[in-house]
Amino acid sequence: MRAVIFANGAVHWTTKPQPLPGPGEVSIQVRMAGICNTDLELLKGYMDFAGIPGHEFVGRVVAAPDHPELLGKRVTAEINLGCGRCRTCLTSGPRHCPHRTTLGIAGKDGAFAEYVTVPASAVHMVPDGVSDREAVFIEPLAAALEPGQQLHLTADTSVLVLGDGKLGILAACSLRLQVPDIVLAGRHPRKLAIAAAQGVATRHGDIAGLREAFGRFDVVVEATGRPDGLACALDLVRPEGTVVLKTTTFAPTPVDMARVVVDEISLVGSRCGNFRLATSVLGHRLVDVAPLIEAVHPFDAFPEALAAAARPGAMKVLVEF
Amino acid sequence: MRAVIFANGAVHWTTKPQPLPGPGEVSIQVRMAGICNTDLELLKGYMDFAGIPGHEFVGRVVAAPDHPELLGKRVTAEINLGCGRCRTCLTSGPRHCPHRTTLGIAGKDGAFAEYVTVPASAVHMVPDGVSDREAVFIEPLAAALEPGQQLHLTADTSVLVLGDGKLGILAACSLRLQVPDIVLAGRHPRKLAIAAAQGVATRHGDIAGLREAFGRFDVVVEATGRPDGLACALDLVRPEGTVVLKTTTFAPTPVDMARVVVDEISLVGSRCGNFRLATSVLGHRLVDVAPLIEAVHPFDAFPEALAAAARPGAMKVLVEF
Repeated sequence: MRAVIFANGAVHWTTKPQPLPGPGEVSIQVRMAGICNTDLELLKGYMDFAGIPGHEFVGRVVAAPDHPELLGKRVTAEINLGCGRCRTCLTSGPRHCPHRTTLGIAGKDGAFAEYVTVPASAVHMVPDGVSDREAVFIEPLAAALEPGQQLHLTADTSVLVLGDGKLGILAACSLRLQVPDIVLAGRHPRKLAIAAAQGVATRHGDIAGLREAFGRFDVVVEATGRPDGLACALDLVRPEGTVVLKTTTFAPTPVDMARVVVDEISLVGSRCGNFRLATSVLGHRLVDVAPLIEAVHPFDAFPEALAAAARPGAMKVLVEF
Repeated sequence: MRAVIFANGAVHWTTKPQPLPGPGEVSIQVRMAGICNTDLELLKGYMDFAGIPGHEFVGRVVAAPDHPELLGKRVTAEINLGCGRCRTCLTSGPRHCPHRTTLGIAGKDGAFAEYVTVPASAVHMVPDGVSDREAVFIEPLAAALEPGQQLHLTADTSVLVLGDGKLGILAACSLRLQVPDIVLAGRHPRKLAIAAAQGVATRHGDIAGLREAFGRFDVVVEATGRPDGLACALDLVRPEGTVVLKTTTFAPTPVDMARVVVDEISLVGSRCGNFRLATSVLGHRLVDVAPLIEAVHPFDAFPEALAAAARPGAMKVLVEF
């Protein structure tokens, strides 16, 4: 099969034998995959990854020796693959298993290839009403829905999402399922408009303007991707409020922890989310992900797709097989 | 009356008129006061404070024009004095009122004086069975009980308290009211012994030793007072676990926020606490604070008391009037 390889900071094409499913695994023929900012970071050296990247995808099960009921189904898959035996897996699931591999990110080849193998336990069926293009968003949408799973939000909670990138838009559109008063702040009118079209209040401008217009928020979701994002969030959260951290930055960030202690603020790290919930939200058409698609490239043009995804301000770039 | 003044980094004696209670206030004749690390920080310039310090105290109400029922009562008082009118005061109380003064810390003279005035609404009666020496601990005990109020702890939650200073010992002894598996880690066998005598498991040693002996904890209460305390706490908390921050440091601390996001850790700032709970805990003799007393000095020897409190490793120094 044809596959993309990241190695030594460069993209390579390779031809490999079609992978055979191991015990309990299924083999999936990939139909569509999405390029994530994490893929761009992997290329820069994140996780010291060398292998086939790609963790947002949809495909059809073509081999499932131990799970014949899955054969022919259109599916996506969890990206955190736990050992299934340790205390973490048995109590809170695979997402934080210390022995886990992560599809296309750490220790496990991903979906920028004609075929990918995953454990059957990681597979999620895609509902018929969800297109391939939409199904690729199940993984990022799960991550965007996660703040609403981690916090106890009520109708009276005021929420600000900082950052109008893909994750910020998806987070704002997700949070509006739980909270009437949700504001998305960013710097790109074109991107803010995507959320505004789904009923999210949007704000273009600086922190002082936000403070003046809205006061301080109960919850701030920091999704700027910038090193100063946390400092901005702390300026906009009320005492005893919560900042949800979605930005993974490399360098340790100086944080005004005295402020966090004195104002009794909570900082909550938030990485990935629940695929079953994201599949349900897409299946019920509660969040419209289609406007986030920037372009769809054929797999043969992967380098062009990657370049498009790396362009500043790019939205989601998909690869079709 | 005789009073101590902190001004320009030095301690001064002064003689002032006995303060008269304002509207809704009571005047309290101070019987005993405690020296807190915050007092030592004030002297170094924290909060730009100039005035009478002292926020841990017990005394007797000697004037209460608007609240005659309080006259003659033995009391202590909340230290966060809210405006009583803003949204914060009306919804979550005075502790985070943006217009608040803080007794002996910001905008309000404190208890290192023969008399102190406070709003009657801030007063808490001291139960008869609680001695003056113990009653001075109501404020720090409230702060130590606060993590148990902020988090949902159950019998299965494993908790580590990092730091065997006064606050760490009080926090460990407080948390053991809610959690069977509580460990206090520190560097001072003499201090660890105070908690051990109250049934807290203690551990003298380094982080690697802690990890080997106990694994990672669900909750780590960081009470080291050191700038590297948070990094240590992050090394000892499990994924999806919580670090409660009790240390107020001046300098912004570099924090590995990528770790916080990837492992979905929560950092919870925790400053002060509920006086009613602390009074109840002392009244029911659930935590023994007496072993934390290092020395009791007469008020006339305040400079000596302050020097004793500033000695490295000092426990609680009290001042008797």
